[in-house]
Amino acid sequence: MPTGSPLLLRKMQLLTTIRYGWTRRCCPGIRMASSQSSSNRVGFIGLGNMGSHMARNLLKKGQSVMIYDVYPEAMAALEGQGAVAARSLTEIADSCSKIITMLPSSPHCTQVYTGDGGLLKSDIKEGTLLIDCSTIDPATSKEISASAVKRGATFCDAPVSGGVMGARDAALTFMVGCDSPEDFDAIRTLLSLMGKNVVHCGSVGMGEAAKICNNMLMAIGMVATAETFNLGIRLGLDAKVLAGVINTSSGRCWSSEVYNPVPGIKEGTPACNNYDGGFAINLMAKDLGLAVNAANATSTPTAFGSLAHQLYKMLMSTGYGSKDFSAIYHYLQERPQQQPLSKKA
Amino acid sequence: MPTGSPLLLRKMQLLTTIRYGWTRRCCPGIRMASSQSSSNRVGFIGLGNMGSHMARNLLKKGQSVMIYDVYPEAMAALEGQGAVAARSLTEIADSCSKIITMLPSSPHCTQVYTGDGGLLKSDIKEGTLLIDCSTIDPATSKEISASAVKRGATFCDAPVSGGVMGARDAALTFMVGCDSPEDFDAIRTLLSLMGKNVVHCGSVGMGEAAKICNNMLMAIGMVATAETFNLGIRLGLDAKVLAGVINTSSGRCWSSEVYNPVPGIKEGTPACNNYDGGFAINLMAKDLGLAVNAANATSTPTAFGSLAHQLYKMLMSTGYGSKDFSAIYHYLQERPQQQPLSKKA
Amino acid sequence: MPTGSPLLLRKMQLLTTIRYGWTRRCCPGIRMASSQSSSNRVGFIGLGNMGSHMARNLLKKGQSVMIYDVYPEAMAALEGQGAVAARSLTEIADSCSKIITMLPSSPHCTQVYTGDGGLLKSDIKEGTLLIDCSTIDPATSKEISASAVKRGATFCDAPVSGGVMGARDAALTFMVGCDSPEDFDAIRTLLSLMGKNVVHCGSVGMGEAAKICNNMLMAIGMVATAETFNLGIRLGLDAKVLAGVINTSSGRCWSSEVYNPVPGIKEGTPACNNYDGGFAINLMAKDLGLAVNAANATSTPTAFGSLAHQLYKMLMSTGYGSKDFSAIYHYLQERPQQQPLSKKA
Amino acid sequence: MPTGSPLLLRKMQLLTTIRYGWTRRCCPGIRMASSQSSSNRVGFIGLGNMGSHMARNLLKKGQSVMIYDVYPEAMAALEGQGAVAARSLTEIADSCSKIITMLPSSPHCTQVYTGDGGLLKSDIKEGTLLIDCSTIDPATSKEISASAVKRGATFCDAPVSGGVMGARDAALTFMVGCDSPEDFDAIRTLLSLMGKNVVHCGSVGMGEAAKICNNMLMAIGMVATAETFNLGIRLGLDAKVLAGVINTSSGRCWSSEVYNPVPGIKEGTPACNNYDGGFAINLMAKDLGLAVNAANATSTPTAFGSLAHQLYKMLMSTGYGSKDFSAIYHYLQERPQQQPLSKKA
Repeated sequence: MPTGSPLLLRKMQLLTTIRYGWTRRCCPGIRMASSQSSSNRVGFIGLGNMGSHMARNLLKKGQSVMIYDVYPEAMAALEGQGAVAARSLTEIADSCSKIITMLPSSPHCTQVYTGDGGLLKSDIKEGTLLIDCSTIDPATSKEISASAVKRGATFCDAPVSGGVMGARDAALTFMVGCDSPEDFDAIRTLLSLMGKNVVHCGSVGMGEAAKICNNMLMAIGMVATAETFNLGIRLGLDAKVLAGVINTSSGRCWSSEVYNPVPGIKEGTPACNNYDGGFAINLMAKDLGLAVNAANATSTPTAFGSLAHQLYKMLMSTGYGSKDFSAIYHYLQERPQQQPLSKKA
Repeated sequence: MPTGSPLLLRKMQLLTTIRYGWTRRCCPGIRMASSQSSSNRVGFIGLGNMGSHMARNLLKKGQSVMIYDVYPEAMAALEGQGAVAARSLTEIADSCSKIITMLPSSPHCTQVYTGDGGLLKSDIKEGTLLIDCSTIDPATSKEISASAVKRGATFCDAPVSGGVMGARDAALTFMVGCDSPEDFDAIRTLLSLMGKNVVHCGSVGMGEAAKICNNMLMAIGMVATAETFNLGIRLGLDAKVLAGVINTSSGRCWSSEVYNPVPGIKEGTPACNNYDGGFAINLMAKDLGLAVNAANATSTPTAFGSLAHQLYKMLMSTGYGSKDFSAIYHYLQERPQQQPLSKKA
Repeated sequence: MPTGSPLLLRKMQLLTTIRYGWTRRCCPGIRMASSQSSSNRVGFIGLGNMGSHMARNLLKKGQSVMIYDVYPEAMAALEGQGAVAARSLTEIADSCSKIITMLPSSPHCTQVYTGDGGLLKSDIKEGTLLIDCSTIDPATSKEISASAVKRGATFCDAPVSGGVMGARDAALTFMVGCDSPEDFDAIRTLLSLMGKNVVHCGSVGMGEAAKICNNMLMAIGMVATAETFNLGIRLGLDAKVLAGVINTSSGRCWSSEVYNPVPGIKEGTPACNNYDGGFAINLMAKDLGLAVNAANATSTPTAFGSLAHQLYKMLMSTGYGSKDFSAIYHYLQERPQQQPLSKKA
Repeated sequence: MPTGSPLLLRKMQLLTTIRYGWTRRCCPGIRMASSQSSSNRVGFIGLGNMGSHMARNLLKKGQSVMIYDVYPEAMAALEGQGAVAARSLTEIADSCSKIITMLPSSPHCTQVYTGDGGLLKSDIKEGTLLIDCSTIDPATSKEISASAVKRGATFCDAPVSGGVMGARDAALTFMVGCDSPEDFDAIRTLLSLMGKNVVHCGSVGMGEAAKICNNMLMAIGMVATAETFNLGIRLGLDAKVLAGVINTSSGRCWSSEVYNPVPGIKEGTPACNNYDGGFAINLMAKDLGLAVNAANATSTPTAFGSLAHQLYKMLMSTGYGSKDFSAIYHYLQERPQQQPLSKKA
């Protein structure tokens, strides 16, 4: 059941008590779902920046969707678009044959699935398909799956890439870990309503494993690109010339080609927008934390992934947490007389 | 309940099922404890390399000791010296007013204290004093303590330094985290029978925090000393001359003065004994894992502690796991033509 | 005049004395060049693995080439193909209006250009074009250029990428640092006979700067790819599935796509050939040394480039020096019972 | 002759041209030395923060001292105390049988000893004793020594520890590299006038080697101490309690005991004085640069020394360069709302 660091866990539990408190706080004007169950209903739990777009896309594609979030206002918006608000996780478990979760962290998932009042403590129907799109520890996915199997349900992990834009435009990529090909077909059909690519990465947990591996490599690539361009520029190179050389040679990577951290190299990147938008350093540090945990659990040496994690924690300590992760370039090159990054207006 | 990495946890749970299986395996010839409770009895759980010496010292100092370990043979030896073997954790909870645990990892502690059949699931007496001498995650200590408080018991963490020698010679140092001065007096009295120093480090969890901080700094100091001596020797310095300069100057640390990793510098060290004995790299990697987890949970940048962890994981991958942690020196200086470290005979 | 580390320098000077000793050792059967100068002759100095192919391509394209190397046998082969062997650097300086050098390190270049008996201590003709294709410190390039300017000659740095295959097939990429566009046209014309791309990177030194930046990023990308795949595989992922995910996502880089370090992922890579062939770790460590030196000289923080350097030095210490730099994967994943990499037959 | 990075070198050469320009700039009121040579005279070159105190101590102990510095005002102060100002390095070479140098970097030493107009290009007397107290690359020391031997002079390296206070109070420690015991006796006699300890570390270069090794270990110890205390405090430990545990245990090092980077732990440290005074980060980064160069030259892996170098370069980039090197603690723990360190008043 456990995951991540215990200190974090307790903070999260506190948070969960607030966000997912099993007594739904009263919210006038929100229509409650009737308790009748509907086997075609899709349950959707977790209506944050990503989840609200994803649920909306299900509604647009004609799905009957029952939603749940501890923040009533998060539900209110989607109700106006046809979603039915549940009063509790139990109601979702009662009413839906397919349930999607999109939650912030491993402890949240543990709580929502196997905690007191959680989905797998409810009268979940045999054969229910549980799809978790959160980015969490692969070991937690495996533990939830084992609990689901005991209840006759099927669980898969299906973390996404593509960000808030991809969620909005139904253009996400899903990395799926599930244990049987039959399950995968049903999963693909449903997830395709919210994304463009659905990749079967292996058994349960392997979707998360693929995602944290990719993000770890992306993080290292970004720090390395920032370091390299900082060095090149201090040696006298024009940044665009350097990008030209690297991107047609063996140094190229996604961060040098597509998401270059030097302002002015690649239009439309956060680097050209004061490092706002994009993928926040706080979130990158969280994903690197998952990678480092997984590396520790398997005694895998990850000197670079770990150092990237440390650097991003340093950036958090010095106030860069909400900036895009390419702001490592700004951090490295900043000089005494330089202005710090301005706050987002 | 949670701690450490989930993957590890599951491995540990498996192990725990074996070592601490609640159905004590039959073992002819071992005298079972009568079920009568004795309020002066000290319970001792976990009779490994450290624990067996510690329990023996309690017996030597005249304590009435009830012991428990999943390996009957571990108990057999101590029974011959006057200890009473318990059939279960429940029996310990029933019979003892003070209980000491010395276990290999956080998941073991969670299982022994709050797992099914664990001490805090038993009819533990109000006012029981629970002292955990294991080296585990400070957050786990806090969680166990919270469970203990609900049952009217008192829990403190009291990890040790001094190694197997210190355990044997009743010369350990205990770093204690407990929430009240009154508790500390009783704790000190008991722990003094097994050690020389009992330091109050703060509230529950702070004993563990102090220990993992100390060990992280020790690990970095060792790697740094190994690196520095390797460099000095390659530059042409005599290792003893270099030790003389460093140990009277600002570079000195415990690893350069007391536990020098270069063979021949300091008599009696593992470095002078083919890196056998001492503190195994596997254990050091485990302690660094605790430090890194705690750093992640608090978003603390620990670039050096983390890099030390990575290096020790590399050493484990290349077969050095059971050697003393000073073998990092051998690892760094080894050359193609060199023989690898021989196995312990 | 200076460059690199002094210790290295002295080793190199020794080597230089052997390879470029100004008294050409007698070698029966080698036809010596007549002392008549020919303004269209191209001088080529340094006939190692790369240089011999490059000079041969000049001959094939109809150039008149005068060659020099301290090893007579290196010259003998090319003489059979029409090259004229020089007796000394001075003879090259006397006879050629364009001179190309392809040498192993900064100190060699310093010696060949500005050392006793070097090109710029000879009666070099005004207007001579000096093109150095070695991979050296950008600051050394600038120093040689300054000396060349004093003698009325033009110097440019033009390090290559493409390896021995690229040299053989006249498919190299040249990264050129030169101070004027007119010079660049002449340079491009000549270099095009030996390669496919000739990129003007900026003023003198910027060719070297671009190359060491690219190689630093490539090295980090390789270590990061090795680490990531090692982690993914230990977590249970199939390596090909992981490559599929990463190479269509934000983790992709040259090392994951083109030069994957995991055996069996990408045909034709050194990873599929026992890590033989390719770019040797010794050479990668040398290039990273240049990058780290340049970073130190400009006070640029390069935590990742520097850590990559350290790791490759560790690999050298443990006997991997002549293996391809992707062997970092093998190093990270190797386990006690595993066989070390076999020597190249 | 070479040293350090070429880029740095050129900057230094520029500086040297200014500071040690061979045409002494006119400075009215300064009494010039008569050209008569005096075999008992001690020459002292380089009158910066350290050198001026050292020369003054020689004068106080009754030595006849001839001084040289490119800044006339540096000489003026000492002339008032009995020193004789030289017009050039040549005059020092002519007039003194023992010459001490205290210069900022390897290129300065190279210039002063073997550059145009340098001591070893002058009519230096056979048997002259040359003592270099600068902290420079050990390879440079060896090169200068080789040049000195050719001229019949004796050279030793004798870098110091003890800082400006130690220089003022004649309490320095000298780490001496010299090739013969006879030389060492004469050296010790002279250096004892300026310090308390004179340690013979081995042959020429070994004084420098010992110093850079010590300082590398000190730097790592400092970063590690800062990291560890930052972690402990975030985990809830009282910093003084943690210091108590560590300093009586295996984590202790000079930085935790004597020079603790946490304000309030140890009176009189820079940490208690807004990180002013002490050993500036700029200088620490310079010394780490020497260590890293020496490691590169000998292919020695120094992952921690190198990472310490990178961190201190990051601190320089973010404006901490003139603060004491213990300010790494402030850097790691600083939080968004925190005030940056104030400038020294």
